[in-house]
Amino acid sequence: MRVLVTGAAGFIGRALVDALAARPDTFGASAQNPSFVLTDRVERPSGSPPDASWCRGEIDDPALLGRLFDEPADVVFHLAGVVSGAAEADYALGKRVNLDATIALLERCRAQAADGGPIARVVYASSIAVFGTPLPARIDDATAPEPTLSYGTHKRACELLIDDCTRRGFIDGRALRLSGVVVRPPLANGALSGFNSDLIREPLAGRDYVCPVSPDATIWIVSLGHAIANLIRLAQVDGAALGPRRALTTPSLAVSIAGVVATLAKVDPTAPTRIRFDPQPAIEAQFGRWALDCSFERGRRIGLTCDPSIDAVIRTHRETA
Amino acid sequence: MRVLVTGAAGFIGRALVDALAARPDTFGASAQNPSFVLTDRVERPSGSPPDASWCRGEIDDPALLGRLFDEPADVVFHLAGVVSGAAEADYALGKRVNLDATIALLERCRAQAADGGPIARVVYASSIAVFGTPLPARIDDATAPEPTLSYGTHKRACELLIDDCTRRGFIDGRALRLSGVVVRPPLANGALSGFNSDLIREPLAGRDYVCPVSPDATIWIVSLGHAIANLIRLAQVDGAALGPRRALTTPSLAVSIAGVVATLAKVDPTAPTRIRFDPQPAIEAQFGRWALDCSFERGRRIGLTCDPSIDAVIRTHRETA
Repeated sequence: MRVLVTGAAGFIGRALVDALAARPDTFGASAQNPSFVLTDRVERPSGSPPDASWCRGEIDDPALLGRLFDEPADVVFHLAGVVSGAAEADYALGKRVNLDATIALLERCRAQAADGGPIARVVYASSIAVFGTPLPARIDDATAPEPTLSYGTHKRACELLIDDCTRRGFIDGRALRLSGVVVRPPLANGALSGFNSDLIREPLAGRDYVCPVSPDATIWIVSLGHAIANLIRLAQVDGAALGPRRALTTPSLAVSIAGVVATLAKVDPTAPTRIRFDPQPAIEAQFGRWALDCSFERGRRIGLTCDPSIDAVIRTHRETA
Repeated sequence: MRVLVTGAAGFIGRALVDALAARPDTFGASAQNPSFVLTDRVERPSGSPPDASWCRGEIDDPALLGRLFDEPADVVFHLAGVVSGAAEADYALGKRVNLDATIALLERCRAQAADGGPIARVVYASSIAVFGTPLPARIDDATAPEPTLSYGTHKRACELLIDDCTRRGFIDGRALRLSGVVVRPPLANGALSGFNSDLIREPLAGRDYVCPVSPDATIWIVSLGHAIANLIRLAQVDGAALGPRRALTTPSLAVSIAGVVATLAKVDPTAPTRIRFDPQPAIEAQFGRWALDCSFERGRRIGLTCDPSIDAVIRTHRETA
């Protein structure tokens, strides 16, 4: 069994690869110790499993895709992407990576199946950015995605293509809409939702922090551990349990910024004094108006999980930071 | 002013071009007598306005797109497409024409605007096939599109891209979801919804007809005249009246097959005797379960119309056939 991971050097990619390498029976007793093909635009990160192949390259480069599929892939975790802020800043780049490269990857999977190869199980990292502004007062599994960022538009288009390619038997696709995965390292990667992590990390590290949304802003977050577990769970579950609509939203904690700050204070009473608020209306509309009235029933039904509380998220961060 | 029409030799394209040529002030007093650039994969049809440029070629050929945009386009009616049945039969063809070529056309418009050219007003022929099976019991402007055909998937993906390109100021886009446009000529073009037209045309022409859906199937139809008027109206309306979501459904008559047959009987009492029913479940699920409980409020608000009754549709057909 061959497992391909794109975006393997990223915050989520590295943790996913570590988790997969630590659990050689992820795909069942008959597929022990799969071989890994990892790709990203940088050199192999230190700590990456040495027996995995590392293909450095740009995901929108057809030659790289050719190398990745020189042997058939059984499972594809497609995480590579240009994040929200960067895709807003550079439309052409975002389109090339988030839309065109995903279409090209699906075409590779289709060609592989047409050649008698395996029907790849494709796990796609989508995003709650498929929901646009004004964000609905309630979001559940029936809420219509109406994106208002290029990032979310391209994610939603790819979700639709994954459903269709699955229906036609080209792939066995699944898309997980990730919410704010916390706590990201301070490295800026252009995600406009980065304040989710900064707000937790910076004050606890003793640094001042200017928050771009107001205390009454509301966010959806999930810890890295649960996000990874959910990607793996989604790769394991039988397609029949998912039905024809293959995109679902990761269970997430829906919390207010004030609630996060109050929890920080329990851990470090001085933390709130390091936070200043400078709300940016455009950031707040897309990233700080997530419905507290929400349901992630489809995900929960197939065993996806999230953290029990913001206290638990912050405790885990303190233990691992 | 330069007006580009793709799919200009098709059933809808020819009627649209005729209507535009007959109304030189369509785009206002300041844009009288626009120049037309028409394209399709066949030779210029007889009767096509002789002063219009005709570019024969495949819409998924980058060289053709280059020729079409050798001068900037102010208005683009993008009608070219591979219809539902043909796109189901040949996925690669449908993807190339319905998805890739539309993306490439939008990129041409973006490049034109980036070069200081006009922001093209793009009117895109979408389809009610953005709604998939099982079709919702009610469909209105808030109904979430969940396509279950490749055709509908690619249409919905392009609607999303048009919204995003509009938001970013690359184009001023509009998408009209066409329902069953009747009465099509008997030429089979691979549209699985073709029975909408066949059912009216064939028995009235004295020919036997085998209907692939049952008498209690329900369809949405709009006559060619109203479809054309709606495309033109959508090209005329100010973008501000549309808001950020640029896809809307053409007002349509929601009728049962039995209702159509009863109306045929009023015109020709022998017509029903020439109809036999051989319902195909897959056709009936996607094309014969359209909600009688429906609303086209957004379209109506900006002046889109449909026929007052199925009697009127059949009367018009009799007068013009």
